[in-house]
Amino acid sequence: MQINQDRYKDHLMTLAEIGKIGETGVNRLAHSKDDRKAVDVVQGWMKEAGLTTRIDGFGNLIGRTEGTEPDQPILMMGSHIDSQPYGGRFDGTAGALGAIEVVHTMKEQNIKPVRTIEVICFADEEGSRFNKGVFGVRGLIGQLEEGEILRKDKNGMTRLEALREFGVEPDLSESPVYKPGDIEAFLELHIEQGPVLESKDKPVGIVSAISGPIWLTVTLEGFAGHAGSVPMHLRQDAMLGAAIITKEFNELVRREGTPNTVGTVGSIQNFPNSRNIIAEKVEFTIDLRDIDLDARNRLEEKLYQLIEKTSKELNLDYSITEDTKSDPRYCADWIKEIMKKHDEQLGYQSPTLMSGPFHDALFMSYISDYGMIFVRCEKGISHNPLEYAEMEDLQKGVELLYHTAMEIAGA
Amino acid sequence: MQINQDRYKDHLMTLAEIGKIGETGVNRLAHSKDDRKAVDVVQGWMKEAGLTTRIDGFGNLIGRTEGTEPDQPILMMGSHIDSQPYGGRFDGTAGALGAIEVVHTMKEQNIKPVRTIEVICFADEEGSRFNKGVFGVRGLIGQLEEGEILRKDKNGMTRLEALREFGVEPDLSESPVYKPGDIEAFLELHIEQGPVLESKDKPVGIVSAISGPIWLTVTLEGFAGHAGSVPMHLRQDAMLGAAIITKEFNELVRREGTPNTVGTVGSIQNFPNSRNIIAEKVEFTIDLRDIDLDARNRLEEKLYQLIEKTSKELNLDYSITEDTKSDPRYCADWIKEIMKKHDEQLGYQSPTLMSGPFHDALFMSYISDYGMIFVRCEKGISHNPLEYAEMEDLQKGVELLYHTAMEIAGA
Repeated sequence: MQINQDRYKDHLMTLAEIGKIGETGVNRLAHSKDDRKAVDVVQGWMKEAGLTTRIDGFGNLIGRTEGTEPDQPILMMGSHIDSQPYGGRFDGTAGALGAIEVVHTMKEQNIKPVRTIEVICFADEEGSRFNKGVFGVRGLIGQLEEGEILRKDKNGMTRLEALREFGVEPDLSESPVYKPGDIEAFLELHIEQGPVLESKDKPVGIVSAISGPIWLTVTLEGFAGHAGSVPMHLRQDAMLGAAIITKEFNELVRREGTPNTVGTVGSIQNFPNSRNIIAEKVEFTIDLRDIDLDARNRLEEKLYQLIEKTSKELNLDYSITEDTKSDPRYCADWIKEIMKKHDEQLGYQSPTLMSGPFHDALFMSYISDYGMIFVRCEKGISHNPLEYAEMEDLQKGVELLYHTAMEIAGA
Repeated sequence: MQINQDRYKDHLMTLAEIGKIGETGVNRLAHSKDDRKAVDVVQGWMKEAGLTTRIDGFGNLIGRTEGTEPDQPILMMGSHIDSQPYGGRFDGTAGALGAIEVVHTMKEQNIKPVRTIEVICFADEEGSRFNKGVFGVRGLIGQLEEGEILRKDKNGMTRLEALREFGVEPDLSESPVYKPGDIEAFLELHIEQGPVLESKDKPVGIVSAISGPIWLTVTLEGFAGHAGSVPMHLRQDAMLGAAIITKEFNELVRREGTPNTVGTVGSIQNFPNSRNIIAEKVEFTIDLRDIDLDARNRLEEKLYQLIEKTSKELNLDYSITEDTKSDPRYCADWIKEIMKKHDEQLGYQSPTLMSGPFHDALFMSYISDYGMIFVRCEKGISHNPLEYAEMEDLQKGVELLYHTAMEIAGA
């Protein structure tokens, strides 16, 4: 391996001590004291890697090394180092520290890239504290919403106040910082947060796209009645309606979806939710994702038909609210090709897979081509102190990031 | 009609004023001041009907008229006059006041029955206040549980204190008051609390049995995961398991049950109940009832198989808790025959139907033969201020009760 495995491991484990909870957990909420402590430590590692560093008004930590052709669009790499309140040690940090390791290795090898390289630790990817995340990256690309700097955390502190306590003076007029054309490629390494690589017994994966979710809330209204006294054929049972839709939606996704389609009913509210009363009203959510937009659209249409048909058969009223509808964002073919070439040389035989969860890269995609590398994590567990990835797998992922970055930066 | 329709209507509407909520609702919690006020008023009507009255130590109001052969097992009739906290005007009262009307009519007709007749308003049928009902009837038959007199209402008042405030000194050593052989027949008229009579366009029904419920709580445990990142074939989705069981249980009941079988999933708890997380744990209830015990047992067995099969297919752990299992209690054939004969003479063409909900009569069945008359109520709504029954239907029901009581009492 080209990269320094021990240094990378040491950085990961050192960072995991900041905001540590239990043996393996981390609590580093965005803009908090522990987040600032982590930024300071990581800034030191950036400097050791030869980067000139700054913290911008959104709380992003950015390290930069000038290329031999400073007018060329730059290469940007990174991820985030904030965490969930009850999070793990690898989510975000694996890619942020991996990007620093890549540049540090280049420096040690006296490699001077053609393109300028920026390494970034995005501020507040997780969004737990202010119930709205990917703040730093949205600041960079000009997607902040009006007034969101005044959102409050559960203690009543605004993001503005939190950023000042963190040590920066937000200046939203700086947004966007980057425009299309400024950045040649954005690369992010991240733990998979899913079980696909584990099931394929592969340490590393090359991401094809970040899928776009449709989020619906379905409300079914029937008629309450005594569970003992209303014969089956006279019922208007909203719970039964939800059950039929949940089951048949699952079958629809499996039967007619692509291998990447996922469909989930994750949340349900039932009224009056009493064991001897037929449900009058049930509200449940649907999450439908694919990287194939046509496939997703076909399924969405059939889902609506399924809801209508079921409601009619059971004599229920229904309504559907669309809470979110995002398009999938594809990784650039040319970046995937570079990754695959080096992957082959490294002998990883990494599969291509989509990302269900979003990442900072999703937002970077609006101003830059992007590529992502996934690293296997145990049972797909994330956002939990039980989150675990083998160090060897993480190091392999960073090695692939190194070779990819070298080629794109022109080193 | 033999009964005095106006008097019966007047009594019903007068009683509905005590504890009235809104235009049509009633709130007369067991042993409360309003319950006592109602007992006093009804006691007056009992006296006008020629009954000698007493309030026993359980809070039951009992009126009695001696028969010409006092050694014969007695005829007992009645229901309850307490209500749900957000209840209607007819639940219980229709039968309690109907029984008084029957005796009052006999008195006016100078009829002296062979058997002694007792009319009863059972204490705390509803059970809302102390979260355990049918208190009065269980006192009579010796089915009180140890310590239940010390159960508290939400204000911290025990039933013992409430009964004293109500004006009686409980003496549990009096229980049981009646033994098998003391009572020839118990008759109860009640609103149906279901939609069957309305759907058949009939004012009155003759009850065949009170069905016995099986109450189960089913817990399914899978594995939480991100709704975007876990492929369909790698999921252990507890919500999907609950949906499949709910749907297929419904089909099972419809396909293999009798026309009287009802099966309901009324309550569900989902964890973590987040729209983008695959459900890890779902707990839901099953209510299965029939008056045909063999049919119910067959379905119960298939239900257990369904839960096991579904859990296996979806890679879920499951557990089943049996919360209640009561046998159906059949109305006496000889009483139903008497009812049918008079029903024919009255020209009602009343259908026979089962009772899903339980009633005081269910408990009386352990010491006496019993019969029940149902009266149509709008849309089956009960336990709600919207509860409504046509006065004409109620009067028809009481008329049938009168003829039935006359024959059984030997008048």
